[in-house]
Formats: sequence, C-alpha cells, structure tokens
Amino acid sequence: MKDRVYNFGAGPAMLPIPVMEKIQREWLDYNGMGVSIIEISHRAKEFVAVLEEAQALFRELTGLPDNYRILFVHGGARMQFSALPLNFAGRSPERTCLYVESGNFAKLAAKEAANLCNVVTIASSAATDYDRIPELASEQIDPSAAYLHITGNNTIYGTRWNVFPETGGVPLIADMTSELLSRKIDFSRFGVVYAGLQKNLGPSGMAMVIVREDLLGHADLQTPTLLNYTQCDKDNSLTNTTNTFAIYVIKLVLEWLKEQGGVEVIEALNEEKAARLYQVIDAADFYRGIALPEHRSIMNVSFRLPSEELDKAFLKEAEAIGLYALKGHRNAGGVRASIYNPMPMAGVEKLATFMEEFARRNG
Amino acid sequence: MKDRVYNFGAGPAMLPIPVMEKIQREWLDYNGMGVSIIEISHRAKEFVAVLEEAQALFRELTGLPDNYRILFVHGGARMQFSALPLNFAGRSPERTCLYVESGNFAKLAAKEAANLCNVVTIASSAATDYDRIPELASEQIDPSAAYLHITGNNTIYGTRWNVFPETGGVPLIADMTSELLSRKIDFSRFGVVYAGLQKNLGPSGMAMVIVREDLLGHADLQTPTLLNYTQCDKDNSLTNTTNTFAIYVIKLVLEWLKEQGGVEVIEALNEEKAARLYQVIDAADFYRGIALPEHRSIMNVSFRLPSEELDKAFLKEAEAIGLYALKGHRNAGGVRASIYNPMPMAGVEKLATFMEEFARRNG
Repeated sequence: MKDRVYNFGAGPAMLPIPVMEKIQREWLDYNGMGVSIIEISHRAKEFVAVLEEAQALFRELTGLPDNYRILFVHGGARMQFSALPLNFAGRSPERTCLYVESGNFAKLAAKEAANLCNVVTIASSAATDYDRIPELASEQIDPSAAYLHITGNNTIYGTRWNVFPETGGVPLIADMTSELLSRKIDFSRFGVVYAGLQKNLGPSGMAMVIVREDLLGHADLQTPTLLNYTQCDKDNSLTNTTNTFAIYVIKLVLEWLKEQGGVEVIEALNEEKAARLYQVIDAADFYRGIALPEHRSIMNVSFRLPSEELDKAFLKEAEAIGLYALKGHRNAGGVRASIYNPMPMAGVEKLATFMEEFARRNG
Repeated sequence: MKDRVYNFGAGPAMLPIPVMEKIQREWLDYNGMGVSIIEISHRAKEFVAVLEEAQALFRELTGLPDNYRILFVHGGARMQFSALPLNFAGRSPERTCLYVESGNFAKLAAKEAANLCNVVTIASSAATDYDRIPELASEQIDPSAAYLHITGNNTIYGTRWNVFPETGGVPLIADMTSELLSRKIDFSRFGVVYAGLQKNLGPSGMAMVIVREDLLGHADLQTPTLLNYTQCDKDNSLTNTTNTFAIYVIKLVLEWLKEQGGVEVIEALNEEKAARLYQVIDAADFYRGIALPEHRSIMNVSFRLPSEELDKAFLKEAEAIGLYALKGHRNAGGVRASIYNPMPMAGVEKLATFMEEFARRNG
C-alpha cells in the first residue's frame, strides 16, 4: 500500500483517519449484528439510533437552540438551491427572495431560484472576480422578502463572511457547505443554515439543513415531497429510504470532533493552519492570494504563482511529494489548498515548507 | 466478531460478500492513490473512470440498446416519483399520465405526480389488498398520455409483472427498484426504467434512470435542475457533486454480477431460490402466501402463518439462528423473505429447512 497522502481536495474531501479506520474495522459486522450498517433498514432501531445520535451530537457541539430542527436531505447543497424557494418563497407576498452573489455557488443558487420565485440580487462581487464579500447596507434588505440568501464561505475563491449581515425580520439563509463546524456560529442569527456533507461533515450526496421551526409550513403545493422540509421534519428525515451510509459517517465525524475538543478547539487549529499558509503567501512577492486579506477563508486558501507555467510546475512537484489535489477550480485557476477540519497541522506544515522552498528556487 | 447472518432485509439490503470485502480492502487507499475513493473529487479522472465503467458494464450485462441513456440521480426511486411528471408530462397536451396501482409504492408514485400533472389511475388491485397485478386492457391506454407508469415488482406484497403490458405509442415507465438486474428485460419495450439502488444494485440514497433518448427535452421550466433528466444526461450525471460512494459500489456489484455469469445465470438462480420457498409454502396447510401464485415475485416472498402469535414466534426463532430481517412490511404483516441477487442458495436453504421444521412443530 502506498503511504496516505495529504489530501487538499475541495470536496469530496479527506475524512479524519480515525473515522475512516473505524468504518473499515466495522464494515462487515456492525455492533455484532453480523451485517454492515449499510445493509440494514433505515427504519431498523440500530440505524435510527445512529441518526438520532448524530442529531444530538450536532446540538451538543454547536449549542443549537431548541427551536431549530436538524434535517438530513438528499442531493447535497445544490438540491437545496431549488428547495429553498419551494419551501419559503410563499412567506413573501411577492415571492421576493434576496440573494448576495459572492461567488460561483452563490450565483448558481440565485439562478436556480429564478424559475421558482422573484429573485433580487442585492449585492455582488462579480466585478472584482469574487475576491471579496460584497458590501451590504441594511437599507438594501426589503423587509417583505421571504429570506436573504448568502454563501458563508466561497470554496472556489477562498473568501468568507467574517461578520454576518444584520437582516432585521428577514430570515437569513446561509449555505455553509464548506465551513459548517469549522468555526463557532451563533445559529440564532439565522433562519436556515445548510451544508452539503462532502467538506467537513462526511461523504457526498446528502445535505444537512438546520431550520428554525417557525419557518416551516409554507411549502408550495407543487414541492416534491423529498424537497419539502416540513414533511422531512415530520418524518425525522425518514420519509423515504435515506442515505444511510452518509448519516452513519457524519455521526462518526461528530464523535471525532467531540474527541478533538469541539468546535472552538478545531476553530483555533483552523485559524492556525490558515495563518501559516497566508504567512507564506504574504512573506514574499511570489504568491498572490486570490481573496482580499480581510475576506480570507480559513477553509480554502486560493492563490496564484507568477505565471501559469509556474502554477503547473508547482502542482506537479507538490503531487510528487504527496501533496494531493491542490489544483485550483477551473473558474479561478492557480492553486487551492482546502484545509478542512480533518487536515492535520503536519499536512499544512509540509505544504508551507514546500511553498517556501519552491518560491526560493523559482522566485 | 459475530458470524455473518443471512440478511433477508427488503432494503437497504445485503450486498455480495466479495464486494463488501473488496470495499474494506481498498478503503484507505484506492488504487495506490493514498486516499479513499470517497475522498476524491467527482471530477477526478479516477472517479469518472468508475462512473463510465459502471455504465459500460450495465450496457454489457443488459444488452441495453444504444438509444438509451444511463443516469445516476439523487434521492432513490421516490425522488423520481416527482421527476417523472416534471420531465415527461409536457409530452401530453392535457398533461395526462397513466398509473397502475399494484401496491403501496405504485400508489405513492401516482399520489406524488398528482400535484404536477393530470394523473389517471387506470387499474388497481387495492380491492384485493394488492395480492395480484391488476388486469389491464389496451383500450384503457389513452394514446395521448405522456406515459404509463407501472411498478415492476411490488416489494411489500411480493407480486410482479410476469408479462409487461403492450402500450402502443405510449411510453411505458417502470419502477424496477426491487428487480432490476434480477431478470432479463427487453429494454426496448420501455421508455424509462428506474430503480433505487438499495435492493440489487448498491447502497441507499441514489437511483439509476435508464431513459430512451427521444423522450428527453420536455422538462417543465420549473423542474429543479437536479431532477431534470435532460440536464443530467448532458452532464453525464455530474451536474453537481454526485454520491460517489454509491456509484463506486454499483460498479463493484456489476463486476460481481459479470463474474457470476451475468443476468441470465443469476435469473435462473433467483428462480430456483424462490421456487424452493414457494414449495414450502404450498406443501402444507400452514403458510399462506400473500401473492396469488401466478403473480409471485422471485425477489420478495411474502407469507403469513396461521396466527399473528405464530408470526411473532417464527420471527423470533428465525433471528436466533441467524436468519435476519424477515419481518413483513407494516402494510402487509407476516413474514417477508427478500432474496435479491446477492442472497446465496445456502441462505434460502437454511430458511426453507427452518420453515419446514417450524411448521412440523406448530402445524
């Protein structure tokens, strides 16, 4: 077997090694049942226990207020781009839904909603190639809107909202796919927080939706049942056969996070990991960060080298020494290091050292 | 570790043991990459190869005609209950979609479509508690309908279509969740065949949709992108981050099926397995099959004992000797043995012998 590499992929991303090893160990025989966890009914008491434990752990780790529900839904964050207007546009007389365009997925969310509601994009950083979170004044927020949608962390460009906007009575909805559980969040500021699992939480194909109870009950009649959050909540995410594997893995990831000391501890480590890479970027006139410094993400560090040829050489050499999947997204080019919760400091240190050495040789 | 049991669960169901062992072996290091297959991008060439190999194997094993597309979509069969009218109702001037109600899931499919099109249920066996496939005359099929929907195999009641209906120019759409790849099918008879993976194909949370090319291109404007088969086909099932784990597993299951000798060989074995159980049911005046003999499924064998007390005693004793998950669905009660492709004859023989012995002791 080849040594494990350091996996900087943006998602599906690396999972904690102890989690992966535990899955491997109990793969053929879950808790002495003589079958795998993926071979049992989603209604079996053993699986329902996994689901409920995942919900309880999430509450414990985040301090989620009691008036928020935790849903597991099919299809990743992208499916929610449709589900959000279907569930909530009916709350606004004009079906007005506000969007902030801070990157590619923010733009896709608005585009998907446009067929289902009256989308108003109230701020955008497209003009500066999404190098920042756009400014937003509270006067821009139509108080009759069903919600204001933001993307918490922009995976491609490596920007994030450091301070979330004040929205008054308009529920704030945030796609936190690439940052949920990476930093402490005051959930009471949000109407809905959702995230595809495949960054910090688990495998791909499913999303978590955290929704404030009072927002439920407004779905359009034509909402597909499996996109209807009210129905999902009523059935505790078991309206149909759920993705049992994904829920099993997220439960293990949550246990792992608890063992690490919880969200505050991991956030401090994430800050430290990101700071180490930004320090290399800022130290010399070689690497250019894509995000403005005050909008930098601690999950995705995106940068370019002085030329595309150097980008390529960098990626090739990195891969050769076990630094995997550093290629930037096609929309941004360059290099992107995704350093989600499971990435250890040792991986970041190896990358930082390589960056310094590469700059010395080629600068 | 407890010995592996024989798992008769209806789904998520047992997977072939060689497949499960292979997943376990390569869990931490896929093909020497130093990462797991579930930790790499859905756009990585190594994953795209898995996806394309699964499609090629499916074509090879089924003899699928060239004018059919193979899609992998989120959410299992149930999500397709919404996707079908969204994609195809527009083909009919009156948005008429025909349904045959042969069981619980057939009924749910029609119910889900009712908000999205003009549903006409043209035949039902509800009056006899779904103990048969309802009769259907070709005059009942409105030639202007967008499609006729049937459920190929009714998991709960253990019935199946032995002869598929003639529908003239109206595309026949079949939910084959619990029978795809268990028997040889002439796909050219169908417009669409779809199946949740969690019976014969893989883990839960995803479906395969096999669609005749000329039916694409009619989706309603308001169709969520991830439910739009035309978009899915255009992007070769990678519009967004797909469920990479599920596609990886189905590829291994298809390889396993090929090693077994293919669909015809497994069908003969399935016939033999089912016949063994039905022979026990018919041999004495103790077990009562739920399905009429001429409509019996070879995937799900549903029966009752002379009393509910005996049902319970049977299930308890069965579990104690390693015959797992035989409890009937809550809608049908009694006992259900799901004997999908991966169930070996040895498991069926152990169950049949126990049934004979239990009947002798309690008859």
